[in-house]
Amino acid sequence: MTDNLQTVWNYADAVCFDVDSTVIKEEGIDELAKFCNKGNEVAELTKKAMVGTMTFQEALKLRLNIIQPTLQQVRQFIQTKPPTLSPGIKYLVQSLHNRKIPVYLISGGFRSIIGPIAKSLNIPQEHIFANRLKFYFNGDYAGFDEYEYTSKSGGKALAIQKLKDTYGYKNVILIGDGATDLEACPPADAFIGYGGNVIRESVKNKAKWYITDFSELTFS
Amino acid sequence: MTDNLQTVWNYADAVCFDVDSTVIKEEGIDELAKFCNKGNEVAELTKKAMVGTMTFQEALKLRLNIIQPTLQQVRQFIQTKPPTLSPGIKYLVQSLHNRKIPVYLISGGFRSIIGPIAKSLNIPQEHIFANRLKFYFNGDYAGFDEYEYTSKSGGKALAIQKLKDTYGYKNVILIGDGATDLEACPPADAFIGYGGNVIRESVKNKAKWYITDFSELTFS
Ligand SMILES: [Mg+2]
Ligand SMILES: [Mg+2]
Repeated sequence: MTDNLQTVWNYADAVCFDVDSTVIKEEGIDELAKFCNKGNEVAELTKKAMVGTMTFQEALKLRLNIIQPTLQQVRQFIQTKPPTLSPGIKYLVQSLHNRKIPVYLISGGFRSIIGPIAKSLNIPQEHIFANRLKFYFNGDYAGFDEYEYTSKSGGKALAIQKLKDTYGYKNVILIGDGATDLEACPPADAFIGYGGNVIRESVKNKAKWYITDFSELTFS
Repeated sequence: MTDNLQTVWNYADAVCFDVDSTVIKEEGIDELAKFCNKGNEVAELTKKAMVGTMTFQEALKLRLNIIQPTLQQVRQFIQTKPPTLSPGIKYLVQSLHNRKIPVYLISGGFRSIIGPIAKSLNIPQEHIFANRLKFYFNGDYAGFDEYEYTSKSGGKALAIQKLKDTYGYKNVILIGDGATDLEACPPADAFIGYGGNVIRESVKNKAKWYITDFSELTFS
């Protein structure tokens, strides 16, 4: 593989997108927290998690324990606060599908929120790697699937390795805004940083390729 | 406390009932299994569990993993296959409530199924100790609360001890058909075996008191 982004792109046999601040403009968990009137508490905890030594799963658990989202709240949230697609993502995914290149969403967010996003992009639900919330019969929050790859530190790498093992992909491109995305390359064969919603300097500095507009990837 | 059942009954400051084959005629998990077309598989496993060394929680997990009840199935089950109250239970609970004696339901079955039973008997939902099923957002089965007392071997005893510690009850009566009920006395102060739906010989032999009709407990 050469250093040329277009060449890398042409050789891709699968493209994986991060979701929060990449496919969509928002951070799903922050929006859900705000919706459940726990925005400030979660924001404080997120700050602490970023400077501390907490694992991804510990931070996820603590934030969800604050939010305690009920089934009814998640339903209402999806209906009344649908996320905003980033500019150009729909066209980009469509152009990949036209080339018969499978597209995956790999997110530390929640499947229940990402499901409708995938649908709007014609991405099969089976192409989602994300965390699964659990609820009791009455709708009370009951935890999350702690075995899901994406609930763990390094989980995005595990998901991509799983895809490579299962389908034999040789040129997996991962596109995302965050450190957890950058870290998943390798096993991803190429990482493209995306700064269209928020620019994370450490990602921008370390990424070989960095774009701020998805149209940069729709080569003629 | 004397050996006289009426005296024991008169001194009761809380009465706990088992649910399956006691308050109701059926075994809830078996009925749910049948409803989900897994009746035979679960019946076979129950037989194995009874002769083996499986813990209660292991047996519960295995049976639920066979049934994999979805939220939608549990809802339909409750609506279309409501359990049958055992004869005389409604009057008995009413007479206890008239005497201001709190009544509790302590079951290895499921809160979602027992909730409506409690309601029909005017027993507060907070007086239920039972297992809590978990579901994913799409309704798929997602396990059960493994920290609930009643999910463990010896769990009914833990629930009764908790009641005594919390409310200071001194004369807790437990009524049930099964070995797990008998085993919870002590901490229960008295156990009354109930054979109105099914007679378990080992329980009948070991129980100091044994009735087959709840009217035997509605003393004048
Ligand atoms: Mg992101
Ligand atoms: Mg029973």
